Amino acid sequence: MSSTNRQVRLAARPSGLPKPADWDLVELPVPAPGPGECVVAISHISLDPAMRGWMNAGASYIDPVEIGDVMRAGAVGRVSASEHPGFDVGDRVYGNFGVQEHALTDGKGVHKIDPSLAAPPTYLGTLGMTGLTAYFGLLDVAKLQEGETVVVSGAAGAVGSAAGQIAKLKGARVIGIAGGEQKCRWLVEELGIDAAIDYKGEDVRRALREHAPKGVDVFFDNVGGEILDAVLTRLARGARIVICGAVSQYNATEAVRGPSNYLSLLVFRATMTGMVVFDYAARYPEAMAEIAGWMREGKIVSREHEVEGGVEAFHDALLKLFAGENTGKLVLRVGDGESS
Amino acid sequence: MSSTNRQVRLAARPSGLPKPADWDLVELPVPAPGPGECVVAISHISLDPAMRGWMNAGASYIDPVEIGDVMRAGAVGRVSASEHPGFDVGDRVYGNFGVQEHALTDGKGVHKIDPSLAAPPTYLGTLGMTGLTAYFGLLDVAKLQEGETVVVSGAAGAVGSAAGQIAKLKGARVIGIAGGEQKCRWLVEELGIDAAIDYKGEDVRRALREHAPKGVDVFFDNVGGEILDAVLTRLARGARIVICGAVSQYNATEAVRGPSNYLSLLVFRATMTGMVVFDYAARYPEAMAEIAGWMREGKIVSREHEVEGGVEAFHDALLKLFAGENTGKLVLRVGDGESS
Repeated sequence: MSSTNRQVRLAARPSGLPKPADWDLVELPVPAPGPGECVVAISHISLDPAMRGWMNAGASYIDPVEIGDVMRAGAVGRVSASEHPGFDVGDRVYGNFGVQEHALTDGKGVHKIDPSLAAPPTYLGTLGMTGLTAYFGLLDVAKLQEGETVVVSGAAGAVGSAAGQIAKLKGARVIGIAGGEQKCRWLVEELGIDAAIDYKGEDVRRALREHAPKGVDVFFDNVGGEILDAVLTRLARGARIVICGAVSQYNATEAVRGPSNYLSLLVFRATMTGMVVFDYAARYPEAMAEIAGWMREGKIVSREHEVEGGVEAFHDALLKLFAGENTGKLVLRVGDGESS
Repeated sequence: MSSTNRQVRLAARPSGLPKPADWDLVELPVPAPGPGECVVAISHISLDPAMRGWMNAGASYIDPVEIGDVMRAGAVGRVSASEHPGFDVGDRVYGNFGVQEHALTDGKGVHKIDPSLAAPPTYLGTLGMTGLTAYFGLLDVAKLQEGETVVVSGAAGAVGSAAGQIAKLKGARVIGIAGGEQKCRWLVEELGIDAAIDYKGEDVRRALREHAPKGVDVFFDNVGGEILDAVLTRLARGARIVICGAVSQYNATEAVRGPSNYLSLLVFRATMTGMVVFDYAARYPEAMAEIAGWMREGKIVSREHEVEGGVEAFHDALLKLFAGENTGKLVLRVGDGESS
């Protein structure tokens, strides 16, 4: 094991897409745990669209990452040293460890994971915040009912691919919107989604008319922008829109594009609700247990898109995410893989 | 009583603000009732922002008014001839009678009103659809709780002034947004609203920071546009936005301005819901009874802004509405006043 810990710290607040100069790569000795602490050798770091928001100053649902701070990130790894009574060396764990190779932690918000159920990166995806976001968004915020028509945007992304599958498992008809034929094929052929719309190659409104002739009961939106506006024209009466994110807008240098068709909410007596998964922390265990059951039974497919190159590849990996180059959950491989 | 019936019919679908040429004034004999019908001599016609939407082609929450049809409007009047077992000559009634002097009706959707409780025009305002919209929007859609902070836009308008007062009666702290000092003074001094913001003379965001330091729990929006965007920045956690209308956008010739700050829904875990009062028809009686009780006890002030001039003044009256020249409910006086 390396004796140095490389960290990616926020050097500047980006305007638009992050630039390499917005980051500092810092090298420090691997810390030693004090009483009640442990050190985690990180194996995989989660890449999330929400990271872009955390880089901005100002009030949001979570404090911004400050200039000079290690970039916030969920990650999995292996306990490499421990003075903490709850964690032993060798334990596989998930936590909010940041973009670095080794994390010192007091164990708060750190959870053991079970590598016999799924590989560690899956705990950043379907068995992690990603899957939980899809789960609570559909079942709790949207109150999805069997037989309803669900549209998911960013459907081949991490949250989207979990949402599409969970909606199917709950008896919905599911239409995914994604960019590119290959992703669309994956949605239908591998994930069993009923229909996929390639927003890069198809007229989304026309395709929705075809695939959702009775209108859309639930829209799980990760994207915003034109796609949100298109779906707003095709709602069913009493539709519920879950605003999980708006990746199309996160790097906008001009004002965010608001949904011009929001008066459809009135026409269709529909609701648009914002969600943040952290609010459901008390119910993570029940949701995790249900999702893990589906995985064990092979009813849900988890796909991680692993990028190599360690923490110095973080910037390029993040741009890949905003370019929509990933299918499934994008994770960055860190360290020598001893924990995977 | 005149033997002719003058009607205002839709001649063309307007682009932007309606023009005089968008209407035809037609003169016909007053109809005679057949079996099961009655004729109503109209005394007051309701002017509503929603009328602008009814003039557009295309699907909405209600069918559009067709070219050549009498313009749709709620109205009150006096039964002048009856072959209907449920209505006698002299009965005061409310119905969807249209912009005309005399309406032939089979009695469907026609309700008797009690002129001893309030003057007939009040049944187009606080004791009519206007008051009901405010009532169900606040209590049913927003589920207003005592002690919450409520913001109402278009607060000196018909629905807005009812909403502000109902919110006060239910124990909320109420901030009204209106255009002009005079309206703002009326809101605070006559209606007892806690604070008023003059969007023409004040910075709305700054004023909201001052008057709603803990954030806005319920926003009852009649206006849309910049005011919706301003309130979105000042929500409290779990806020509910009721989209009742968007009068700032109804005459737009460019695309409707969507709320750029809609991602505040996510930050504040807030909900934006569209409402149409017609959905609550089954519960009108209970709501009417409660509102009538408040009127009887003097707990709610109803103000009608009467425009003279008969049906030929309809066009000018409608423009007055979109220019925000009314305080309270704008109604058009029709006929010789025998029913008022």
